[in-house]
Amino acid sequence: MSHSRTEIHNFAAGPSPLPTSVLEEAARGLLNYGNTGMGVCELSHRGKEFKGIIEGAEGESVGVSHSTRREANLRKLLNIPSSYAVLFAQGGGTTQFSSVVLNVLAARRLQHRSDSEYTPPVLDYVVTGSWSSKAYSEAQPATTKPSSFTTLPKRDEYSFTKDAGLVYYCENETINGIEFPLDQSSPYAFPFDLVPENVPLVADYSSSFLSRPIPNLERHAIIYAGAQKNLGPSGVTVVIVRKDLLVDTAEAMKLGGVPVVPIQNEYKILADNGSLYNTPPTFPIYVSALVLEHLLSRGGLDGLRDINGEKARLLYETLDAAERDGKVRCVVREKEARSWMNVTFETVGEGKEKAFLDGAEARGFRQLKGHRSVGGIRASLYNAVTIDSVRALCEWIKAF
Amino acid sequence: MSHSRTEIHNFAAGPSPLPTSVLEEAARGLLNYGNTGMGVCELSHRGKEFKGIIEGAEGESVGVSHSTRREANLRKLLNIPSSYAVLFAQGGGTTQFSSVVLNVLAARRLQHRSDSEYTPPVLDYVVTGSWSSKAYSEAQPATTKPSSFTTLPKRDEYSFTKDAGLVYYCENETINGIEFPLDQSSPYAFPFDLVPENVPLVADYSSSFLSRPIPNLERHAIIYAGAQKNLGPSGVTVVIVRKDLLVDTAEAMKLGGVPVVPIQNEYKILADNGSLYNTPPTFPIYVSALVLEHLLSRGGLDGLRDINGEKARLLYETLDAAERDGKVRCVVREKEARSWMNVTFETVGEGKEKAFLDGAEARGFRQLKGHRSVGGIRASLYNAVTIDSVRALCEWIKAF
Repeated sequence: MSHSRTEIHNFAAGPSPLPTSVLEEAARGLLNYGNTGMGVCELSHRGKEFKGIIEGAEGESVGVSHSTRREANLRKLLNIPSSYAVLFAQGGGTTQFSSVVLNVLAARRLQHRSDSEYTPPVLDYVVTGSWSSKAYSEAQPATTKPSSFTTLPKRDEYSFTKDAGLVYYCENETINGIEFPLDQSSPYAFPFDLVPENVPLVADYSSSFLSRPIPNLERHAIIYAGAQKNLGPSGVTVVIVRKDLLVDTAEAMKLGGVPVVPIQNEYKILADNGSLYNTPPTFPIYVSALVLEHLLSRGGLDGLRDINGEKARLLYETLDAAERDGKVRCVVREKEARSWMNVTFETVGEGKEKAFLDGAEARGFRQLKGHRSVGGIRASLYNAVTIDSVRALCEWIKAF
Repeated sequence: MSHSRTEIHNFAAGPSPLPTSVLEEAARGLLNYGNTGMGVCELSHRGKEFKGIIEGAEGESVGVSHSTRREANLRKLLNIPSSYAVLFAQGGGTTQFSSVVLNVLAARRLQHRSDSEYTPPVLDYVVTGSWSSKAYSEAQPATTKPSSFTTLPKRDEYSFTKDAGLVYYCENETINGIEFPLDQSSPYAFPFDLVPENVPLVADYSSSFLSRPIPNLERHAIIYAGAQKNLGPSGVTVVIVRKDLLVDTAEAMKLGGVPVVPIQNEYKILADNGSLYNTPPTFPIYVSALVLEHLLSRGGLDGLRDINGEKARLLYETLDAAERDGKVRCVVREKEARSWMNVTFETVGEGKEKAFLDGAEARGFRQLKGHRSVGGIRASLYNAVTIDSVRALCEWIKAF
């Protein structure tokens, strides 16, 4: 059956919907970027046309080395201070699982340059779901110490190592639908004040990045996020990294006691080359630059926080009411730990899930199936999902 | 000034031109893929729609686990036997600089499982330009032995290590414009017979991949290539790897004597997950799938070899004639070492280069500037550059 975009409500968990206006501009750019007679995928990443995409048209450039328009727009949206570098990496969040460890360990080794009895530090992982668990596994060749939770822990359940190499958490777990609350007075809020002062704090923000402001951004050493939720097509990963972690990993390797660091994992190389050390995925970069302009035009992250909060409130209230009627069950029981981005629920009763999904499909709802590892239903409410799509889904839940 | 695609001849060194028919289909897919009402960048990489892109529509699937349509098409084009896996990786060729070493060293360690005095092997690099030089640098934490050449060596200049961990070469050096000749009787042909029988042979085919058949494909252990020259937009790297190199690197790490292998570098993880271990760059994958169909419809690699050989012959003959007239100078002196894909030359005389490039620009020729590290002029003649574009460039060289 043939569908137009307006007939469809796309709740994909990522890659996820993008604004139609952005896609229309990108489709034009694909064949003929800025009337150059060349498509955006056909431009050298070192040429003047592509430079225009990442640095802004002449006169618009912010005029600082490597401080490009896409970077300037991200800094504006998130209020990122100049003590941080903003990098655009390849390889997805999975590559960052190793990059954060390799760079943090190299930086620490260089701080202990003269220590001939150097011992690598313990790494503290807050494991609250599949993604933080995968990140923890990747760090296991180094000594690590995980705390495993099936939901978010409360303040008194954390115990961080005094001299840890890093503390790591995942702000939003897409698969189970758990997110640290924005309200810092909640008992489930991330306990920034409990992290020992000199320990680098690392956060995976992949699936909530740019959906609302980042609390305590300046308390972090590294924040990273795959683009494919709120920023653009898959292929780009944003890394916000405190500049003291931009270190020459080859120098650390010479001292010994640290793992080998492949080129693509070193932050300093990316930073020194304006995120263009080797050929980047130019099309995802182009589209994410368009999305950044679009988000700024929508009023930035305060506006997005309000609308995304409202979308989540609407859907959870509808689900809670349906749960009281015995029709569905929300997966995340603690309301303050529920994700704004990924709403997970199950139907109650034999054969009901298929009936729910078939009815949803017929009504134009798409990509509602839960992650293959857990099943159930998942509605992802990223920035490009409109409140009208959420309202339509709520109607279907009520009618079901 | 406003240009249409037909007014422009794009000679970019990569990312480089793509067939207009492919871009037209991709632009439609960007907004509404297959009339699903969703754009191709908005599809979950685990969903049935994206599955259709990589596996082929129902009934078209080749029916073998992970042997997807894009893989089947690549196997058909290059005649890849079933003893090789075909992987689609992220991070560009630069990531492969480390991946080839890490996987080869892990496989060797596992072969010497019971050796308590295990010593890592020497690695032999044939350094014929910037790219093989970078690959060599990346391997330096391991013991390596480079042979440096400013052009291609002849047979008697090679000396490979008997029990090397690998022998590495780059088939086409884009920056200087050197390529190993296809004619195996040439003194500059790669000396496959001199590589010790059990030593894994690794080739970087990035910039000539799919421009013509690969000689002695089955003599290689690993062949890899970034997509952004002849296959599609930047963001995807194809790795053709002999299946005995799909090893559990964590097991090798436990034995000791090998470097830490980040997830994104392990070939086995990619192979076991049908190249979908984590979210891949879905749009570059989609477009490259379209390009593969397009190349098959153009008659495969034998047809491309004929047309690409003719394009290179035309341009070099024109340059050689202009060189006899004292107007230009080809960078690569040995004719049999000249690249079909990247034709490099210089103008003779003060101010002539600017005059040549300005005149070229006015005639619709684009992206002819040489790589920033060497300067001069470079015309790249990838598959999507038509023979008419080459003829037009030849006319301008004659007129200059």
